[in-house]
Amino acid sequence: MNKEELIKNLRTVPNFPIPGILFYDVTTLFKNPTCLRYLEDTLYDLYKDKGITKVVGIESRGFILGAALAMRLGAGFIPARKPGKLPAETIQEVFNKEYGTDSIEIHKDAIEKEDVVLIHDDLLATGGTAKAAYNLVQRFSPQQTFINFIIELTDLKGRNLFQPETEITSILKLEGE
Amino acid sequence: MNKEELIKNLRTVPNFPIPGILFYDVTTLFKNPTCLRYLEDTLYDLYKDKGITKVVGIESRGFILGAALAMRLGAGFIPARKPGKLPAETIQEVFNKEYGTDSIEIHKDAIEKEDVVLIHDDLLATGGTAKAAYNLVQRFSPQQTFINFIIELTDLKGRNLFQPETEITSILKLEGE
Repeated sequence: MNKEELIKNLRTVPNFPIPGILFYDVTTLFKNPTCLRYLEDTLYDLYKDKGITKVVGIESRGFILGAALAMRLGAGFIPARKPGKLPAETIQEVFNKEYGTDSIEIHKDAIEKEDVVLIHDDLLATGGTAKAAYNLVQRFSPQQTFINFIIELTDLKGRNLFQPETEITSILKLEGE
Repeated sequence: MNKEELIKNLRTVPNFPIPGILFYDVTTLFKNPTCLRYLEDTLYDLYKDKGITKVVGIESRGFILGAALAMRLGAGFIPARKPGKLPAETIQEVFNKEYGTDSIEIHKDAIEKEDVVLIHDDLLATGGTAKAAYNLVQRFSPQQTFINFIIELTDLKGRNLFQPETEITSILKLEGE
């Protein structure tokens, strides 16, 4: 397995969720045990020496590899969720979307100053959600914060929302509109 | 770590999501690396000899341990999602809720006749969602289907929705209304 074979196993769905969007469907990677293992091994190799103590997965596709990676790194797993889904006290970050605003929450007791955090999601597109998750994590003042995506749509320049020194990785860099 | 210590780490939130419900918040188990590892080891021991080839996680808390377990078992991971979330062709199962109906979907190419399937979710309450997921999986005619929950609220008798021979396990059996 390598990145080319991974891309062969990645399904693309035209006009989802709205006309004009080519959707990269990572469920075909999760379904295939060899692809799932390759993704996980690649993430583990990237982060095994970083001292990660908490992996934050962004709802809901970010939960999938995020939790498996937390387990493998011996870290805790923290879900970052849409408003109203987390039962205890949360802190929230609001961000702009194409039409109107959205927000994302983390439990107020989820992260400590001593933590080294990795934020994971399946896709970096325009980056609004990931930047909001990053800002949210920064409010806990952890030791360090890393960010990872399975796929980065480079044309959309979501990476530009972050400071150049922010440590962002992606397994596949693809063109996307 | 044992079940008593696991319960000590489980947060309960009164009156969530609606008044009168005592909510068992598994995020405090996922946050703690020792609890996360204990849950995963317990699941692995339960299913390592069953020949599981696909783990179906129910949206969205079922994705968390479900995907980590799929990885460890060398199986594929399949998300069962709310309508409209999966991008490719799906099959759907409708089920009754307290008020009205809801439904759950799986990609049409997610499961094969040769598969041995484990369905995982965090909580068995009245069982409507789990039964719908089970019915959905049965439509693929897999070799065998197992079901697992982290927590089973025994007072709610969700288990009674299934035939007695259905292989259902839960890590914690708790009282719940």
